[in-house]
Amino acid sequence: MSKKVAVLMADYVEEIEYTSPKEAIEAKGYTTEVISPDGKEISGKNGEKFTADKSVEDAKADDYAAILIPGGFSPDVLRGNPKNAEFAKHFLENKKATFSICHGPQFLVDTDLLRGYDITSVANVKKDLENAGAIYHDESVIVSDNLITSRTPKDLEDFNNAIQEALTE
Amino acid sequence: MSKKVAVLMADYVEEIEYTSPKEAIEAKGYTTEVISPDGKEISGKNGEKFTADKSVEDAKADDYAAILIPGGFSPDVLRGNPKNAEFAKHFLENKKATFSICHGPQFLVDTDLLRGYDITSVANVKKDLENAGAIYHDESVIVSDNLITSRTPKDLEDFNNAIQEALTE
Repeated sequence: MSKKVAVLMADYVEEIEYTSPKEAIEAKGYTTEVISPDGKEISGKNGEKFTADKSVEDAKADDYAAILIPGGFSPDVLRGNPKNAEFAKHFLENKKATFSICHGPQFLVDTDLLRGYDITSVANVKKDLENAGAIYHDESVIVSDNLITSRTPKDLEDFNNAIQEALTE
Repeated sequence: MSKKVAVLMADYVEEIEYTSPKEAIEAKGYTTEVISPDGKEISGKNGEKFTADKSVEDAKADDYAAILIPGGFSPDVLRGNPKNAEFAKHFLENKKATFSICHGPQFLVDTDLLRGYDITSVANVKKDLENAGAIYHDESVIVSDNLITSRTPKDLEDFNNAIQEALTE
């Protein structure tokens, strides 16, 4: 069974929403791979740079046990290319663990698969999640079947704990 | 009758989506006033700075003939404070001219008043507009009753022409 987690992100990512869950994932014996729309270097919202391991075109969703979608304005950038939503769909369709924080869940609207999920996010995109059929909660972390969502960086501890519980040894 | 147009914007605004329509509005003999969530200086997406004339708290929607909502990530920032959507609601509810480009229409989702409007925007937020009940079109500009929307900076000429037609002499 795969012990790899895909991190789907693009420019303007909120850095800590990638680096902190990455640590939590690796502490459970999993590895992470950064997948960006074009496979090129990513410039975070606060200027930090990250190397992408693969472009979304070259990545095979089957290879991964789970997916992490950090926030910032990266989720909006991801929406610029339908291939990104196609990649993410695999995880929701196959009930694989899907971790998303802050603006991340906004990107998942493009999968058309949020209906019926309990969910949280930064308040700014609440209306979009409700209009997509998800049930919104203002809580630090929401575990809804295979979908684990969180609000903002201040909730990272709860988010990371929930991620670790979802990743089997 | 008021000859003032409110420009509702925040940090990360796409500069040209404010400065170009502003010129078109002024060429019709109208003035513009910049309204920001807190009345403080605004930092554009590409670093340009703009002075706000008023905070959304101090602005009276009744004083304006129309509203302009430029794009960039500013519309997302506006969603962080429900007072901004309250302010914008006045224009849709009273069938006053509402101009919005790129990510701007995404902010209007928070008014809960988009149902039935024909609309366009940058493709990234298409799904949110459809889920909010608007009818999406991939065209340079869409005039739907009092709502005038456009896709991206390359459509500014068509957007500005439609704005000028909507503003009576």
